[in-house]
Amino acid sequence: MNGARSLVETLLRSGVDTCFANPGTSEMHFVAALDQSAGMRCVLGLQENVVTGMADGYYRIAGKPACTLLHCGPGLANGLGNLHNARRARSGIVNIVGDQATYHRPLDAPLTADTEGLARTVSGWLRTCTKSMDVGRDAAAAVQAALTGAGQIATLILPSDASWNEGGVVGNPLPTSLPAAADPHAIETAARVLRESKSVLLLLAGRAVLSEAQALAWRISQATGASLMADYVTAHLARGRGRLQLERVPYNTDMALEALRRFDHIVLVNAKPPVGFFAYPGKPSTQYREDAELHVLTRPDQDPVPALDMLVRLLQAQEVAIPDPGPRPTVASGPPSPDKLACTLAALMPENAIVSDESISYGRGFYRHTHAAPAHDWLHLAGGAIGDGLPVATGAAIGAGGQRRVISLQADGSAMYSLQSLWTQARESLPNTTILLNNRRYAILVGEYGSVGATPGPTAMSMLDLGDPLISWTKLANGMGVEAARAETMEECADLMAFSFGQPGPFLIELMTST
Amino acid sequence: MNGARSLVETLLRSGVDTCFANPGTSEMHFVAALDQSAGMRCVLGLQENVVTGMADGYYRIAGKPACTLLHCGPGLANGLGNLHNARRARSGIVNIVGDQATYHRPLDAPLTADTEGLARTVSGWLRTCTKSMDVGRDAAAAVQAALTGAGQIATLILPSDASWNEGGVVGNPLPTSLPAAADPHAIETAARVLRESKSVLLLLAGRAVLSEAQALAWRISQATGASLMADYVTAHLARGRGRLQLERVPYNTDMALEALRRFDHIVLVNAKPPVGFFAYPGKPSTQYREDAELHVLTRPDQDPVPALDMLVRLLQAQEVAIPDPGPRPTVASGPPSPDKLACTLAALMPENAIVSDESISYGRGFYRHTHAAPAHDWLHLAGGAIGDGLPVATGAAIGAGGQRRVISLQADGSAMYSLQSLWTQARESLPNTTILLNNRRYAILVGEYGSVGATPGPTAMSMLDLGDPLISWTKLANGMGVEAARAETMEECADLMAFSFGQPGPFLIELMTST
Repeated sequence: MNGARSLVETLLRSGVDTCFANPGTSEMHFVAALDQSAGMRCVLGLQENVVTGMADGYYRIAGKPACTLLHCGPGLANGLGNLHNARRARSGIVNIVGDQATYHRPLDAPLTADTEGLARTVSGWLRTCTKSMDVGRDAAAAVQAALTGAGQIATLILPSDASWNEGGVVGNPLPTSLPAAADPHAIETAARVLRESKSVLLLLAGRAVLSEAQALAWRISQATGASLMADYVTAHLARGRGRLQLERVPYNTDMALEALRRFDHIVLVNAKPPVGFFAYPGKPSTQYREDAELHVLTRPDQDPVPALDMLVRLLQAQEVAIPDPGPRPTVASGPPSPDKLACTLAALMPENAIVSDESISYGRGFYRHTHAAPAHDWLHLAGGAIGDGLPVATGAAIGAGGQRRVISLQADGSAMYSLQSLWTQARESLPNTTILLNNRRYAILVGEYGSVGATPGPTAMSMLDLGDPLISWTKLANGMGVEAARAETMEECADLMAFSFGQPGPFLIELMTST
Repeated sequence: MNGARSLVETLLRSGVDTCFANPGTSEMHFVAALDQSAGMRCVLGLQENVVTGMADGYYRIAGKPACTLLHCGPGLANGLGNLHNARRARSGIVNIVGDQATYHRPLDAPLTADTEGLARTVSGWLRTCTKSMDVGRDAAAAVQAALTGAGQIATLILPSDASWNEGGVVGNPLPTSLPAAADPHAIETAARVLRESKSVLLLLAGRAVLSEAQALAWRISQATGASLMADYVTAHLARGRGRLQLERVPYNTDMALEALRRFDHIVLVNAKPPVGFFAYPGKPSTQYREDAELHVLTRPDQDPVPALDMLVRLLQAQEVAIPDPGPRPTVASGPPSPDKLACTLAALMPENAIVSDESISYGRGFYRHTHAAPAHDWLHLAGGAIGDGLPVATGAAIGAGGQRRVISLQADGSAMYSLQSLWTQARESLPNTTILLNNRRYAILVGEYGSVGATPGPTAMSMLDLGDPLISWTKLANGMGVEAARAETMEECADLMAFSFGQPGPFLIELMTST
């Protein structure tokens, strides 16, 4: 058995059965091994940022890592943007990068690059395997690493001779460690603060915004009067009926300062101290009051559920039902607006849907009206590198086994970064609905001008304009085999949403918006 | 004056008047400064690999660097693939990366990344400027660095507070060094070898494949019987009537070995020793005979013209005209083939055109029939990271001031990597004609299977297939505002080429090919 075959067999034995790939010459033996070892689903992406973004979305929904297959340093480089996002989302990914043969690398052939240097910028674990007999062992270690803590990127670089040489040995799965337990002192401190102070915020992130932790946090909040909020940087939130109406810390620094300034204490539950996405002249970098006390209940790599559970006991917090969100909104009409889109989405969203939200500035208020929708999962851009929305949606659909509708709320400027995702949606006949918010500009940056205190003239404004020439998303989707239609009104948008939700495959709605 | 304004002013004073950009919040002050300082042409690309690839193409044709404007580490990461190619092409680029404010960076906001670590993988010069008063000085140094040797990537990382703070000082242009002179001993050695041996190859690369060096190399070849060849990795070749019919060392290892094995001596003129693009099991990594002697006439960072000129004198090589290439080919008909496309291109190509060739496997024989076309420049993918063809063509059109027709010979799989280029071509009304070779597969990899000794099954072959769903390049181009049409025959292709060459703006011909 060659190294490549031992790699595929080891991955399968370790529970990794999905591979997002854009292979090249140095990966041909891995690709060939797919036909010898049954069970690995291989999904092609037409650019590596699509590949890595799909692996991120897959992890968020499947809760286990997929592997990628990338071609040399430059192929890895193309996928780094979404690996950055995946790192911020704490997604576990077994990131496999084929590379020059060990003896060929010193000759500096054209595609030779600093593969390890590139990988190091996003990886929690990194190894270059130089011998075919070590490939299985190293692949098992990579899977173990990807599942460590809350999940991380484990990059295995595989020179082509390690793939093609004989002597491969299938690696045994390695034990995966449970997330670390919280410090008992941290739990006691949080309990004391929650008992003694009337202005406490439990700031939730990571696994603490999923259903189980939400229910516990709600009991604590009801017993103590503490407020609950989600971190702005939240990759995956459980939302809708039966879940909390958790608002995120606002993106805008002034609004974030306003939202947080009443708190004397902030208890961080898998969250980091809230800081601005960017610095702005004359404004603070941190978003909480200078004299507020921060307490860590659980770090991002820890499991929040046992810690919250212990807190519930210490506080003797009673079981309390999560409040009913009230009636489901109805379909809106007339010219599109963010609120109307949120209502229409809430009205029509199927049970157990997944929302991939890269709506950027347009969707800052989507939460309010979608709370009364059926229970769903909401995925956000966690690392701020635009272009994750469509690949994450595509990978999420695969992570859900094609059984759940995935709805992309997708800004146009960001969509252009990884539009090739649509082709994979068509190729795999995935249940993806993209609502493409075509506002013909980088709207967020128009707002950012004011915040940084710069005065844009006509040249500057033209750098934020996507309207000349107009981009037709209907044509782009059709060009990649995805059925699509344009909506100018909410009635048209609602009809297309209802139509798409009833179809098995992908669909794109180009919603013409003015903001 | 703030730091951003001093940056723009310094760039202009140093001769950098074109900026390829995809800005974000941390670059808003640079963008705002564009309206205060006249003279900087700012070209928007909708993904950073388009931005960096345009800067590469611009340098190859304009012969001077443009600057880029990229957003934080992840924006840089998105553009690394084509920066890798630009590094291999030895293109000079002033690569400007905005980043988190100096005091904000330690807080690890979501977009924070190892910007220096990413930049180091492709940059010949790298500096992070932390004070507004240093920005002008550092920008002048970056331009100087970009022009050093044959050209290199100079990355200037600019935290946002260095941009927005007052105290900026315009930097004075710094002297740029001429390329290093060749070692006289190297020239004497080459002369001796050329006099004494009957099996000498002058292997040309970099500036040695442009017109002036070609004429000198031809005289040497005629006086001594030496053979001439271009390196496979050649970013920019002068071709057509009045230039040499230089063949490149073949991509295929067996063919390269065959082409080079008759030579006892290889004189490297800005070329590196020829090695395989990849290693293949059981095949040598180097492509020349083991006992062949290699001699360096000029390193890639040296100017080959004075060295070749000196060699001409030492050898008393007479002035000899470059042979006439014979009659210009005529337009072909019937089903498309690579030879027919080359003939048709040669028949119709306007004077002084630029060809951006990312035809990959389809175009390996294009040289033979295009030699009798009018003089033109031919640009190749130098670093092997696919996706440079369309951005390089776009940047080349801008580098030529919109005065020369730029013809892309573009494979479909590679085109998908940076298709956003088409939007910039439309927005800037550039004279780009894209001949999109739609063969619906990664054809090169089908060939590579055999070379690496792997046996592809149906799963493996499906990873190389782009035909399900079919990609309509006509729709994709239209969707980005570029007029386009499909050609099934060479007659249709020729008609569309003739039409497009007569138009001022961009056009895409989707040529349906079977190989």
